[in-house]
Amino acid sequence: MVRCVSRTQHTLQRYAIIGTGAIGGFYGARLQQAGCDVHFLLRGDYQHVCQQGLVVESVEGDFTLPQVRAYDRPTSMPICDVVAIALKSTQNHLLPQLLPPLLGPNIVLLLQNGLGVEADVAKLIGDRALVSGLCFICSNKVGAGHIRHLDYGAVRLGAYAVDHQPAGITAPMEAIAADLQAAGIPVELEADLILARWKKLVWNVPFNGLSVVLDAQTDELIANPQTRQLAEQLMYEVVAAAAGCDRQISPDFVTYMLRLTETMKPYLTSMKLDYNAGRELEVEAILGNPVRMAHKAGVDVPRIEMLYRQVQFVTRNFRF
Amino acid sequence: MVRCVSRTQHTLQRYAIIGTGAIGGFYGARLQQAGCDVHFLLRGDYQHVCQQGLVVESVEGDFTLPQVRAYDRPTSMPICDVVAIALKSTQNHLLPQLLPPLLGPNIVLLLQNGLGVEADVAKLIGDRALVSGLCFICSNKVGAGHIRHLDYGAVRLGAYAVDHQPAGITAPMEAIAADLQAAGIPVELEADLILARWKKLVWNVPFNGLSVVLDAQTDELIANPQTRQLAEQLMYEVVAAAAGCDRQISPDFVTYMLRLTETMKPYLTSMKLDYNAGRELEVEAILGNPVRMAHKAGVDVPRIEMLYRQVQFVTRNFRF
Repeated sequence: MVRCVSRTQHTLQRYAIIGTGAIGGFYGARLQQAGCDVHFLLRGDYQHVCQQGLVVESVEGDFTLPQVRAYDRPTSMPICDVVAIALKSTQNHLLPQLLPPLLGPNIVLLLQNGLGVEADVAKLIGDRALVSGLCFICSNKVGAGHIRHLDYGAVRLGAYAVDHQPAGITAPMEAIAADLQAAGIPVELEADLILARWKKLVWNVPFNGLSVVLDAQTDELIANPQTRQLAEQLMYEVVAAAAGCDRQISPDFVTYMLRLTETMKPYLTSMKLDYNAGRELEVEAILGNPVRMAHKAGVDVPRIEMLYRQVQFVTRNFRF
Repeated sequence: MVRCVSRTQHTLQRYAIIGTGAIGGFYGARLQQAGCDVHFLLRGDYQHVCQQGLVVESVEGDFTLPQVRAYDRPTSMPICDVVAIALKSTQNHLLPQLLPPLLGPNIVLLLQNGLGVEADVAKLIGDRALVSGLCFICSNKVGAGHIRHLDYGAVRLGAYAVDHQPAGITAPMEAIAADLQAAGIPVELEADLILARWKKLVWNVPFNGLSVVLDAQTDELIANPQTRQLAEQLMYEVVAAAAGCDRQISPDFVTYMLRLTETMKPYLTSMKLDYNAGRELEVEAILGNPVRMAHKAGVDVPRIEMLYRQVQFVTRNFRF
């Protein structure tokens, strides 16, 4: 179930953004531009952003924020209404240090890809509401405090429930949606977060994985009959795994995702961008956790498992 | 059933070698060295070999044949006792031109890898005996008339039967075996050629395919736990496909092949050598035909099929 929010009046919330990169930098800057009070946690770019602020080059219009509230440690930051985690999931081992100083009477928003990433957060935040945001965006950090937004931008919000059951549309989801919409971000609310995550994987598993292993862009993979069919087979394995986890995805959705990919501009997936830059890949969130959840549900996913092994092999010499 | 031949006395036969490369050049030169009357068909290297003969650098001892009987067309060649086809299987479309002028009261010996390659030959040779030789050798053509033999060298001979049933040990097999043994080549006779081919694929499918897709040597693939396990899974798919075609391969054979690979010197597979050189790969004989035979037998081989698609994708821009 998906519905769109349309509020016109609301009180803007105060945001802490953990990780000011392609995702946190973009959405945080847009929220600040819309009038939110936004506090950015940075590492390497801290000095630069203190002095120069943030630059966003965007298909929706370039803008700069000469002044942003930048921090190099969470203990210096105020307690905000929303703590948005915009690190890559490969950095989640840092959360036990970063997150506790920011917790108060607030909502936690997790802006991460893949499956199983909430577990890292849920155990740190007690009974606070955890909202996940799936970002359908093509953006990169191209320099210190410099974000390039190439395409798309919508966010799907869903509430996390420890029992993995659909949590419905919650007040924290609506509050965050209102701010994002005020910032001009298209938002959809998902009553079943886990279903939304599996649906996103229908595309992410084949195209992220194959783009790395086969050194290819999405347009090449969809144009070639062999990889198009392989992508379709991988998509159906995701659908089967989701069904094993009680989430039904229609075959029409697979057809739709294939057609959509045909019409996309040629681009490099996030995993391929990370691979090309020698950065750690989100291989566990996008491939490893789906394989393990499928196996736990008794569903065989030989092609996803093979892709998972292949991606691990081609990154065997990466060191972080 | 495998047994070794041990004859000490026999009449050496006359050989026509179609394709004087890594395989035909090596075995043909060894047969000539042993006293056989050998006639070599060449294309690009014809002039060079007419003038300079053949050079074989070999782990078993280097040698040169300053004088060889070289031909640039089959119509100039005599009718020999054995017509040995040592082209790569990707060149089998040339056989309808090359083979008929050489046929007489003779045996045809097919020195090719993979599965399903006999069909191309059988339809051209009437009721002549067709013997296949599986070459367990690491050799390359490194220049005109110049063969480098790096390791191994044994040949497994089996007789082809149109009905794909085991044909037993035949007189033509024994005659060829005697010549090869006279040339110092280890020979094994296989009562069931199709079983021998499937067994060879247990190794060739994973290591040829993965070496191309993952740009890796055999030692890297066997040392990495992910690709070692993937290789094992691919091997078991070959075993399942063979079983679907009524050929039983023991799980012990998979274990043995994995252990053997651990002790091999690091080397590039034949498919990877072809890939690196921009030459056509034997993708149908080694991957495509096994997938199709498995499907025909109702056996699912998702990993081999995925590897087949991936190899086709990475060679999509090869032109011949």
